[in-house]
Amino acid sequence: MNAVDLIATKRDGGALTGDEIRWLMDGYTVGHVADEQMAAMLMAVYLNGLDHGELQAWTAAMIDSGRRLRFDDLTRPTVDKHSTGGVGDKVSLVLCPLVAACGAAVPQVAGRGLGHTGGTLDKLAAIPGWRAELSPAEVHERLSTVGMVMCAAGPDIAPADRKLYALRDATATVASIPLIASSIMSKKIAEGTDALVLDVKVGTGAFMTDVASARQLAETMVSIGEASGVATRALLTEMSVPLGRAVGNALEVTEAVACFSGDGPSDLVELTLALAHEMLDLVGLDIDATEVLTDGRARATWNASIAAQDGDPNAPLPTAAHRHVVRAKRTGYLSRLDALAVGSAAWRLGAGRARQDHSVSYSAGVMCLSKPGEAVEKGQPVLELHLDDLERLPAALQALQGAIDIEAEPPPPRPLILERIA
Amino acid sequence: MNAVDLIATKRDGGALTGDEIRWLMDGYTVGHVADEQMAAMLMAVYLNGLDHGELQAWTAAMIDSGRRLRFDDLTRPTVDKHSTGGVGDKVSLVLCPLVAACGAAVPQVAGRGLGHTGGTLDKLAAIPGWRAELSPAEVHERLSTVGMVMCAAGPDIAPADRKLYALRDATATVASIPLIASSIMSKKIAEGTDALVLDVKVGTGAFMTDVASARQLAETMVSIGEASGVATRALLTEMSVPLGRAVGNALEVTEAVACFSGDGPSDLVELTLALAHEMLDLVGLDIDATEVLTDGRARATWNASIAAQDGDPNAPLPTAAHRHVVRAKRTGYLSRLDALAVGSAAWRLGAGRARQDHSVSYSAGVMCLSKPGEAVEKGQPVLELHLDDLERLPAALQALQGAIDIEAEPPPPRPLILERIA
Repeated sequence: MNAVDLIATKRDGGALTGDEIRWLMDGYTVGHVADEQMAAMLMAVYLNGLDHGELQAWTAAMIDSGRRLRFDDLTRPTVDKHSTGGVGDKVSLVLCPLVAACGAAVPQVAGRGLGHTGGTLDKLAAIPGWRAELSPAEVHERLSTVGMVMCAAGPDIAPADRKLYALRDATATVASIPLIASSIMSKKIAEGTDALVLDVKVGTGAFMTDVASARQLAETMVSIGEASGVATRALLTEMSVPLGRAVGNALEVTEAVACFSGDGPSDLVELTLALAHEMLDLVGLDIDATEVLTDGRARATWNASIAAQDGDPNAPLPTAAHRHVVRAKRTGYLSRLDALAVGSAAWRLGAGRARQDHSVSYSAGVMCLSKPGEAVEKGQPVLELHLDDLERLPAALQALQGAIDIEAEPPPPRPLILERIA
Repeated sequence: MNAVDLIATKRDGGALTGDEIRWLMDGYTVGHVADEQMAAMLMAVYLNGLDHGELQAWTAAMIDSGRRLRFDDLTRPTVDKHSTGGVGDKVSLVLCPLVAACGAAVPQVAGRGLGHTGGTLDKLAAIPGWRAELSPAEVHERLSTVGMVMCAAGPDIAPADRKLYALRDATATVASIPLIASSIMSKKIAEGTDALVLDVKVGTGAFMTDVASARQLAETMVSIGEASGVATRALLTEMSVPLGRAVGNALEVTEAVACFSGDGPSDLVELTLALAHEMLDLVGLDIDATEVLTDGRARATWNASIAAQDGDPNAPLPTAAHRHVVRAKRTGYLSRLDALAVGSAAWRLGAGRARQDHSVSYSAGVMCLSKPGEAVEKGQPVLELHLDDLERLPAALQALQGAIDIEAEPPPPRPLILERIA
């Protein structure tokens, strides 16, 4: 086999065999297939797609570029959740302890944020002492005792994906459904979960801005999961408005922890419980998560899991030196609060990163003091910007131009959960 | 500007501006745009094409990556010819001296062969002492005195094309009409010719195997030439059978020189005179080339040009140590002699190279003792294989499997010149 022939096959709309895909991926991982050859292949895949068999083989080859963890000896069933990313999406911080407290084991390999969407690891890293890197033995031990981990992917988890992701970023081949689906699913399958629930976000603050594309991505990922022996479901959920009120790393941790005492925002709680229901159902645990969320059990698991990764769950979180308020320009009902704009503002304030090797501010972010549907008086604070570096303020305010609409009548209520795909 | 945005534009079927194309090409030439980014762009161009404006800008940016030679001070008009490559295509060796002897100046920048098609420079290099590399000052001097050069492209001639060509070869993006057309035309326009005739080959031994694709390539190149101020025409010509009888470097030089004494094969002479007519017409020289070809004037120019590049036109050419004859399996008329098979056999015998950095044998090759339409007796030699290394024989004979058909009736005559595009 040679790379030029395989590129030509995909270029001409043909299908690659499983052996060809495996040869390509292995060659790319070790460097026999050059970056420029894989770049041409990625563009051909972007434009000509992958059929079902190719997609399975592509994902399997990415998994097999490293190793697939196994937790068959645990007494608990394993189940995880993945979100395609949104603004204020701190669901994992509440959901993983909740589902673990209900009796499942959650082996969550999470990511860092890029651009206007945050990453679970960045949020948790706001907690003093907490560390993201765990060895496979440590993952196994935490799953046996605490029932959960939220950690970074080790070097053994789909190394081809890491290399491919950087290449896609440089070559305008990120926004391809088969490439997104295989990237997500290769990591989730390699992390060793038995079951998986996908939260596919739709809206201005999400990667997928229309329901049809989100549905296609969800169906593609569900089919990959099922073919790989991982029971998989997906929910399509609304992401045109930030989830909850907090956007920014430490701010989101505080809001997540509030859910354990019944003080969480209603949309965050609703989505967390819906995902918990799907996860527990997938692994056959017939437990009402609603009670577990607030009766102290989820909080106990949270505390144990943070401590098990060397974090102090009781330590004060970093706070920002400066706050700046954005006020309502008129009296009425908040009808729109654009997720992309709020996410971009938080990013500009320092909560996010423009490049993978940049650092983030844990204290920076945006509090949404009002949410769509709520009444506001002219001059009332709608957003509270948190920042340490005042030089960042103008860019954040720029990002918020046109982000807020106020109307005389309240907007119609918008459902949070749009579709369920199983 | 950034490369990712430009790749995304072409990926999505949009058109790049002239400034964007120039930024991309300049960045690629100096290395700010990475190989993998240009590879993704090339695949997007392969699949989505370039419109007329983009193609002009792309070609102009390739020309401007180096410098465009000018011969405005010559007393003769400049005109050149380019062939897209065929088997036994030694036309330039006869044509350039002929047109120069008719009063034009021919600044031919030629190439080396790759795969089953030979290259003019490899053929000329069979002549003892001859050198392909000339400085711009030497080119100018030879054009003033002899009236022609056939030489390698200097480092100043479209350096972006050299880099792009190697990248296309590695990424399955060679066979794209806009990329082929811009590659050929950037070098021809940069070499400084006022006028250009293109010999676009069609058939099994050519890059384009069907007339429709060849016509599209020809029309594309003519449009680029005209837009760049180079008067351009094209002939589509037959390449399913080797041109002439000789295939291989020294063998082809001998056959070319025979044309100067009226002993050239009829198809080679016909095509050479047709191309000469177009070239002379383009620069307004009303001269009958037929007479000039054989009355000693073309030969004198040939001798002078070889000598001007340090070659000895009278030196014996290298001959092969071994010959092997392929005989007719039955009596009848040769109805087919496949150009690709004969070209591949000559390549396997050592006349061609598989990679740009390989060397070639000057003596190896194939003589076509019979051509389609000619009567053959069973057992009569049809092909004579010339080689120094007997280990190469089996691969050459393998390439010739099924290359020869003999029928009871003579085949219908095939026209050599299929279309003229102006």
